[in-house]
Amino acid sequence: MTADGSGTGRVGADPTSAHPAWLPPEAFRAIGSGRTLVCGDGMLVATVRDEVARACARYGGTVGHLPGGAAGPERTGDSDSDGNSDSDSDGRYDLVFALGTTGLLPAGAALAAEVGRGLGPDRGGLGPEGFALARRDGVTAVLADQPAGLLYGLFHVVRLGPAAFGADRPVERHRPAMRLRLVSHWDNVDVHPVMGQVERGYAGGSIFWCDGAPRRDPDRVRDYARLLAACGMNAMTVNNVNVYGTATRLLTDRLDDVAAIADLVRPYGIRVHLSVNFAAPVTLGELPTADPLDGDVRAWWTRAAGRLYETIPDFGGFMVKADSEGQPGPYRYGRTHADGANMLADALAPYGGVVHWRAFVYNHRQDWRDRSTDRARAAYDHFTPLDGRFRDNVIVQVKHGPMDFQTREPVSPVLAAMPGTRLAVEVQATQEYTGQQRHVCYLGPCWSEVLRFAPWGPGRPTVASVAAGTAGDDGGVAASGGGGLVVVSNVGDDHYWTGHPLAQANLYAVGRLAWAPDLDPLAVLDEWIDLTFTPSATADPDLLRGTLHALLDDSWRGYERYTAPLGVGFMVAPGHHYGPDVDGYEYSRWGTYHFADRDGVGVDRTRATGTGFTGQYPQPWADRYESLETCPDELLLFFHHVPYQHVLHSGSTVIQHIYDTHFAGVEQVAEMVRRWERIGPAGLLDPALHARVTDRLAEQLRCAEEWRDKVNTYFLRKSGVPDAHGRRIH
Amino acid sequence: MTADGSGTGRVGADPTSAHPAWLPPEAFRAIGSGRTLVCGDGMLVATVRDEVARACARYGGTVGHLPGGAAGPERTGDSDSDGNSDSDSDGRYDLVFALGTTGLLPAGAALAAEVGRGLGPDRGGLGPEGFALARRDGVTAVLADQPAGLLYGLFHVVRLGPAAFGADRPVERHRPAMRLRLVSHWDNVDVHPVMGQVERGYAGGSIFWCDGAPRRDPDRVRDYARLLAACGMNAMTVNNVNVYGTATRLLTDRLDDVAAIADLVRPYGIRVHLSVNFAAPVTLGELPTADPLDGDVRAWWTRAAGRLYETIPDFGGFMVKADSEGQPGPYRYGRTHADGANMLADALAPYGGVVHWRAFVYNHRQDWRDRSTDRARAAYDHFTPLDGRFRDNVIVQVKHGPMDFQTREPVSPVLAAMPGTRLAVEVQATQEYTGQQRHVCYLGPCWSEVLRFAPWGPGRPTVASVAAGTAGDDGGVAASGGGGLVVVSNVGDDHYWTGHPLAQANLYAVGRLAWAPDLDPLAVLDEWIDLTFTPSATADPDLLRGTLHALLDDSWRGYERYTAPLGVGFMVAPGHHYGPDVDGYEYSRWGTYHFADRDGVGVDRTRATGTGFTGQYPQPWADRYESLETCPDELLLFFHHVPYQHVLHSGSTVIQHIYDTHFAGVEQVAEMVRRWERIGPAGLLDPALHARVTDRLAEQLRCAEEWRDKVNTYFLRKSGVPDAHGRRIH
Repeated sequence: MTADGSGTGRVGADPTSAHPAWLPPEAFRAIGSGRTLVCGDGMLVATVRDEVARACARYGGTVGHLPGGAAGPERTGDSDSDGNSDSDSDGRYDLVFALGTTGLLPAGAALAAEVGRGLGPDRGGLGPEGFALARRDGVTAVLADQPAGLLYGLFHVVRLGPAAFGADRPVERHRPAMRLRLVSHWDNVDVHPVMGQVERGYAGGSIFWCDGAPRRDPDRVRDYARLLAACGMNAMTVNNVNVYGTATRLLTDRLDDVAAIADLVRPYGIRVHLSVNFAAPVTLGELPTADPLDGDVRAWWTRAAGRLYETIPDFGGFMVKADSEGQPGPYRYGRTHADGANMLADALAPYGGVVHWRAFVYNHRQDWRDRSTDRARAAYDHFTPLDGRFRDNVIVQVKHGPMDFQTREPVSPVLAAMPGTRLAVEVQATQEYTGQQRHVCYLGPCWSEVLRFAPWGPGRPTVASVAAGTAGDDGGVAASGGGGLVVVSNVGDDHYWTGHPLAQANLYAVGRLAWAPDLDPLAVLDEWIDLTFTPSATADPDLLRGTLHALLDDSWRGYERYTAPLGVGFMVAPGHHYGPDVDGYEYSRWGTYHFADRDGVGVDRTRATGTGFTGQYPQPWADRYESLETCPDELLLFFHHVPYQHVLHSGSTVIQHIYDTHFAGVEQVAEMVRRWERIGPAGLLDPALHARVTDRLAEQLRCAEEWRDKVNTYFLRKSGVPDAHGRRIH
Repeated sequence: MTADGSGTGRVGADPTSAHPAWLPPEAFRAIGSGRTLVCGDGMLVATVRDEVARACARYGGTVGHLPGGAAGPERTGDSDSDGNSDSDSDGRYDLVFALGTTGLLPAGAALAAEVGRGLGPDRGGLGPEGFALARRDGVTAVLADQPAGLLYGLFHVVRLGPAAFGADRPVERHRPAMRLRLVSHWDNVDVHPVMGQVERGYAGGSIFWCDGAPRRDPDRVRDYARLLAACGMNAMTVNNVNVYGTATRLLTDRLDDVAAIADLVRPYGIRVHLSVNFAAPVTLGELPTADPLDGDVRAWWTRAAGRLYETIPDFGGFMVKADSEGQPGPYRYGRTHADGANMLADALAPYGGVVHWRAFVYNHRQDWRDRSTDRARAAYDHFTPLDGRFRDNVIVQVKHGPMDFQTREPVSPVLAAMPGTRLAVEVQATQEYTGQQRHVCYLGPCWSEVLRFAPWGPGRPTVASVAAGTAGDDGGVAASGGGGLVVVSNVGDDHYWTGHPLAQANLYAVGRLAWAPDLDPLAVLDEWIDLTFTPSATADPDLLRGTLHALLDDSWRGYERYTAPLGVGFMVAPGHHYGPDVDGYEYSRWGTYHFADRDGVGVDRTRATGTGFTGQYPQPWADRYESLETCPDELLLFFHHVPYQHVLHSGSTVIQHIYDTHFAGVEQVAEMVRRWERIGPAGLLDPALHARVTDRLAEQLRCAEEWRDKVNTYFLRKSGVPDAHGRRIH
């Protein structure tokens, strides 16, 4: 370990280092000031011990270590503590981490033993990553069955801060709702001529790759793994789902590059997965076909998997974008996606690996003149006929909405239509369509809505339970094992990791929601604020907290206000997707239309008169979306084509709603600017961070005005309906 | 010379060679079959002699040479003929080229002598490039004062073909209307990350440059110079007007690369000009400023010019795009364009060089919300106040329309507003906005309209006379010397030179029109057809000619029909400018709008209620464009915003005109496809050429349908007016 804090302990004050995000040294003050005992063996337990020791080195506390854990044969004192180990010679601890049974704990760890007994005979209840926590008589105890549980317990204690060492706490059990919590990196190995080093990346280069080669910045990767663990993620892909060039060879002769990353992230419980090109056997020049039923092809993948696990024994698995946006796939050979996924799954199965198979398959060469084609239908139409035909280690990865990460979409009906399949829900932290990390847009509330959505109606299973694999316990949905959550990373080699410093909150929140989907996203924001910002003693912490909430809480809905209205989506500039272009995709091949004419706007997706997409939902949503009377306002134009004078449930007409929300959205950003300006001189923040946010807010305001003016002008020109309030529209 | 025809004499049958375009060996059949005498000295006379000799080697004729011309001291026989020189020992010639006075011509060249006398004492009448031609008594004589005249005379005889050797022809004088006839290459030296090797190039790579280095394909460059001379051009720039990277250094340490090109094109009377970066003294790192009034800067350019002329004694001059679309210029230093241009002119003046200074200056960061800014006004507003302040060797280079080479624009009012300035008219052969050489679009009729346009009304000087410098002879326009014609090249390293084989006609036509602006563009097409295509004896030449005319004659207006209507321009996809995007530029910074709303469409540029652009024209056009009653239909939406139900002079409403022309435009292309198919099996053409055109026609039809459907749908959605004929609009 590095007791001096080098490597993972770098602080923001050093301009050459990465920003500490939600793990600044100050976040460990409470732990580092006390006496801690860590009981147990293994790499992740060592990580816990090292983290505590580093904090102790800074804040004067002590850490003891009991190898073998409470279950171990030896009962030695802390033999390799890096803190002031002498001071805990009285056998008293403020904090005990204990792995396994607790019978042999030292006297000072009595509570831990008690907690352990209190958990009862069902030791499996904590699972491979869960932990239990309690505090009594001045001792806080964290117990886990597996090392990963202690690691997550440590970060839980970090989150609690001083509260972990205050009043007594009864026994709490914590375990992740979803077993697989994966960060998908759209990082290219080679620089793509259009997409660059990171596809849809808005935070600089890749932390893994640079211009075809590994980046070799181990500190960055280690720091990143630590941040991920601290918010609850446990897996990552290291390369873009669009796999080409050198990236194809990560599977073969460039495998060592992947292994090097795996070595760096393993101590934080992160497993490495790889995006692979379905046609790799062909593109690497070794076989004439990539037909998944071809024996040579199957053998090729089996050999590839064997090499992988020989090199990376805890390798996570493959992620595949097949038959999508030009990527190769089984369709080329007349095979199904089940054929394709199962072939890879069979290769990985002996080693416990999984296949993340993306359901993002649609016709991207659509004829806009053909109104019978509806891209929203595509994933359902392609995948639901295959339900039950995927191997147990295949996860079908479904974007949260039926389109493509728009600011507002209904939940994908696929998530309620494949009871016999493990499904992962995929969300996008990188803000492709939500301001590209130049705009403040806290997506916690969006993801929370998705995860809490109940496709079968109130009281029935939620999307979160589908992804967790627990939906089958309740009402008609077969138990599926669950595919967990996948998030597209918003991280790059930017000093603040995410370009916009406040976009860090999205990465933090997605991990927390994957672990506990019921968390209030605003409470998650509080966690993030408390961890990330440690104002000086003289500053007013409520001012900072209030300002951050004022900027972030409603920012997703604010972004929605000044962009595409009422769920219709896509009105962005083609290609780069930043800024408004109302007709940008309207007559294109991408299947993303709004059909605005002089009379009205919106896409008729009803069964009665439209594309029938509403019929892909179970009841009550099939009917609720079908009917103008019951369709929620915010999705009205996603499901219906209505006249501009159609009256919303809000009482406003569609056209006046468009005007009002666009003016209001810009006003909201202007108020954000004012709030942020106000805390500039207050000494609450690193001036560089304040300046970065100030710059981005200025761009957000400019862009919001552009959105307002283009959208309002477009609809005024088309509808001819003047603004009821007589505001300036161009 | 290369008597075997290698280098310049390659024919299309060799797949590795360039297509011979309008100079296939067959075009020289008549000359090559007869007995020719070439009298005169110098490089260009040698070119004439070599051209004839090569033809004789193929077709059995003879060529004699009388060095020193008729004016020379010696009267020797042909000492270095490469033809069958023995056969002209009887002193009879079919064709005589004679330079200078004709007193000492041999007997067989009697007619030439007579013609020479007939020209009378005003020997200057032919000018540096003119020639006289006559035929009598079986002898055709071509006389010139300067070698270049003989070269152009040669290609005139080639054009005449057998007709040059048929009936008697009285003495005709030919001299170019415009002295400077320049092809501007937007060829990049380095590959531009967005624009590639040739900006707006649609015919492959550059014939001059490849990836930062000279291409070193001397045959290609020599062939090109020959083609240019044969259509009448006499100058070229060898690099893009946007000058960056390596191209900046063509002026300094890469000057030898320019000299190498100059050496190759010199034998065909082509002078090389160079596009330069106004900030070169700064960007090359030598000076802290590029202020045109700074002594060091002026000295820097003086030294640069000195080096240039030391290396390339006949160097033509500089072309400059300054203060335009991000290029540097004098505005940065608070100086005028006159200051900037004059500084460069002063550096070149001692050597006879000229500065082509582009008037394409406008605000390309316009706010679409600000309707008071009108890009059409920009060149006039920037440049006319400077009239009279430019040096005599400055040519202000004016795009033919006020916008940017749209399919239909009015003539730029700048061309009628700077009587004290040498003006060049700039046209674009590369089909940036006219189908990018995937569509057949013969631009001869467009350019002819521009050149024949009379800004001061019928009977008064034309644009051609302004560019020729002769407008001052007639009515209030000061003599200016004229700036000639500049055309942006459509040539690349494609086998057919221009991507679309039929796009060769544009390059041919522009040269011919620069030489003789009064030529009928359809007659020019006949010349091009006769030179380029030599069907086999068994084939029906009228079928080929008829088909080519059917495709080409009306193709510009056909393209206009299915694209942006009634002169409104720009409805193209932003960036690459291919294919329709009706609102693509509507809310952007480029100043190119149509302002379509539910009631009407068009840009109000009147003095009464609009931007006042009509006031930039002299009478009668200032009033004619101002009034709805007199504004020509085809420019209606350029000058007026009108309701969809506005009735055109044609009797149709605007909206019905839009529908009708878009359906008609597609029908026209469909008919072109049918016509072209019909000659496929007729043996009239090289099958490879036929196939290339077939492929492009298919794309043209697809794209025309896309234009039709997007434009019609857009306006149906906006106007709500149904098509009177009930055709399908989406």
